[in-house]
Amino acid sequence: MATVDRWLLPDGIEEVLPPEAARIEVVRRQMLDLFQRWGYEFVVTPHIEFLESLLTGAGQDLDLRTFKVTDPLSGRLIGFRADITPQVARIDAHTLRREGPSRLCYAGSVLHAKPRALSTSRSPIQLGAELYGDASPASDVEVIGLMLEVLEQVAVPDVHMDLGHVGIYRGLARAAGLSGEVEQQLFDALQRKAVDEVEALTAALPAVQASMLRALAELCGGREVLDLAQACLVDAPAEVQAALDELIGIADILGVRYPELPLYFDLSELRGYHYHTGVVFAAFVPGVGQSIAQGGRYDDIGADFGRARPATGFSTDLKTLVALGQVESAEPVIGIWAPDSHDVYLWQMVQRLRRQGERVVQALPGQPIAAARAGGCDRQLLLSDGQWRVVPLAP
Amino acid sequence: MATVDRWLLPDGIEEVLPPEAARIEVVRRQMLDLFQRWGYEFVVTPHIEFLESLLTGAGQDLDLRTFKVTDPLSGRLIGFRADITPQVARIDAHTLRREGPSRLCYAGSVLHAKPRALSTSRSPIQLGAELYGDASPASDVEVIGLMLEVLEQVAVPDVHMDLGHVGIYRGLARAAGLSGEVEQQLFDALQRKAVDEVEALTAALPAVQASMLRALAELCGGREVLDLAQACLVDAPAEVQAALDELIGIADILGVRYPELPLYFDLSELRGYHYHTGVVFAAFVPGVGQSIAQGGRYDDIGADFGRARPATGFSTDLKTLVALGQVESAEPVIGIWAPDSHDVYLWQMVQRLRRQGERVVQALPGQPIAAARAGGCDRQLLLSDGQWRVVPLAP
Repeated sequence: MATVDRWLLPDGIEEVLPPEAARIEVVRRQMLDLFQRWGYEFVVTPHIEFLESLLTGAGQDLDLRTFKVTDPLSGRLIGFRADITPQVARIDAHTLRREGPSRLCYAGSVLHAKPRALSTSRSPIQLGAELYGDASPASDVEVIGLMLEVLEQVAVPDVHMDLGHVGIYRGLARAAGLSGEVEQQLFDALQRKAVDEVEALTAALPAVQASMLRALAELCGGREVLDLAQACLVDAPAEVQAALDELIGIADILGVRYPELPLYFDLSELRGYHYHTGVVFAAFVPGVGQSIAQGGRYDDIGADFGRARPATGFSTDLKTLVALGQVESAEPVIGIWAPDSHDVYLWQMVQRLRRQGERVVQALPGQPIAAARAGGCDRQLLLSDGQWRVVPLAP
Repeated sequence: MATVDRWLLPDGIEEVLPPEAARIEVVRRQMLDLFQRWGYEFVVTPHIEFLESLLTGAGQDLDLRTFKVTDPLSGRLIGFRADITPQVARIDAHTLRREGPSRLCYAGSVLHAKPRALSTSRSPIQLGAELYGDASPASDVEVIGLMLEVLEQVAVPDVHMDLGHVGIYRGLARAAGLSGEVEQQLFDALQRKAVDEVEALTAALPAVQASMLRALAELCGGREVLDLAQACLVDAPAEVQAALDELIGIADILGVRYPELPLYFDLSELRGYHYHTGVVFAAFVPGVGQSIAQGGRYDDIGADFGRARPATGFSTDLKTLVALGQVESAEPVIGIWAPDSHDVYLWQMVQRLRRQGERVVQALPGQPIAAARAGGCDRQLLLSDGQWRVVPLAP
């Protein structure tokens, strides 16, 4: 590798320079403080784990996204976390083992061996919150509200939200007795809204069941979709009706709390189908193909760690938030320039100022005073009458 | 892998739970704020890079500590960072390319395929600061001062510091015309203070040079060692004398600024010999074998990235600081308990309180009021006279 390209970073891997890094740090703190005010406790999960732990409850998708390497100490395969959610579920199920609901949050880098989509980052800073131990829609409403608050605090403009519920398709497929393979094909066709394929795949089913499954592809749009769905799914099994009622209940509360928020519903949107068990939601902004924050209910995830607990939560990417949000830049850089001198009184003065919260940059040998302004200083330390004093930097 | 041990983490890999995670976050913020007040700018380096970039300028030691995997996108070997210092050097040399001195700082996880020592963590949170572009001892004094300030702020008790200078041994070895292999053997023997071996390895050298190299193994102790060294090395080449003078100059300033700090000198202590080029320093506390913070000058590191710049800096581990320091726990958890209700006025009140900085935890369906106190709440929201009011939580 020649000197000239030694510095190249792998595709989708970024470094963050000043002042962008300071902005990310500011938003990170704001978000963790926000989570704290909502009652969520911070946890720090490891960057690597045994592969089986990392991939528990997750689909093949996460497996393909995970960098894997043999651990020289144990000889076992370990993976670099591509998603923090399963790690937090492990902490709730195994380590904390609390009775009653538990609220946890996190912020940390994840790595994707393959990017989620063309030209997306392979090293997002995942930020999220999870609520365990309560199966009621109240928890879903809370985490959706927290996700919306995150987007509002960083002032991401023109957010709209998609809501769905995987229980609707799952219940209909089960009632129709679809086999694993056909269920998967139909699932794929619904995702693509490929009406012809959906029709073909449901051709052999009884008319009532076929028509309900076909209806799903059309059931997307505004609030009216939910009323339409109630009419279309009137003959559906109880579990499907319950799922729809849950979705309607959540939509109604969100409508009251966020009357300005554009809400869309898509009953065939099944993102994270193998993972989620209830309501699913995602926030979008115009011009960005991928969701910018997303989540849902995933009640069974803790089972592999010895304790199945209801669970719901969301995650987003801190870098995306900073890029899309209208975050004021970190506070303007100001500071005091200290001359290059080993005078112990100067040094004591510098230390005192720093402890009072001032930024003090000390000149290095040969640095001209012009470097003071370049270094963001607006004042300087000067010796006058035997005293070090802070005076304005001459313009 | 059975359910029962699916949760086991690899050796040396830790998760951090509440309230420990909150304490780490508090200290992380304090340290980054401290760096900012000293004029250091925050950068975020990637967790993975092409292996050649990561290992540039580093010794074999870092190579063995680095997890390696093939990047599926490029087909090239990438490594997971085991040390952030070379990454920051790359940013200074290649990305920022500033004229004049540059101060950078960072905080982030690193991963070690092999632990630095038995039973040490393989996933420290590396925290450090680097000063580029100035070759004078003023820079070394500044970063040593910043490192001491870090230890003081987290109140690590009984810190003492070791100082050395790799230029002394390097200059003597060069003057003696030692070959690579013998230089390495002698280096190893000096590290172990194996006086007999040192004697044997220098037996063939002219008496003056042999006696100076042999003296190194004995030159360790308090401030008096430096005077002794001046006497022992009176016939040494100019570069060795210059290195010793530099060390004495730094020691004298530190002695004035930190009169209470126990300072030790060890002229055969050559930690990071292949990497460092000047003064080296490390902080220790009783009962911990490894240094708890360390650094030194490494002037040539930027060369492989197209720009050799003087450089000096230090690093430490945030988890170690929190474990050893006497950090007050994060602020006591208090908060307001809100009942389980979808009343929109309650929700508005909750939001208002949170925006005022209050922590408000909302009850989930069926949660008893006893959960309020368990959840760290000292007050609750109650409806009285048609108004939601904050009242003390009944004891």
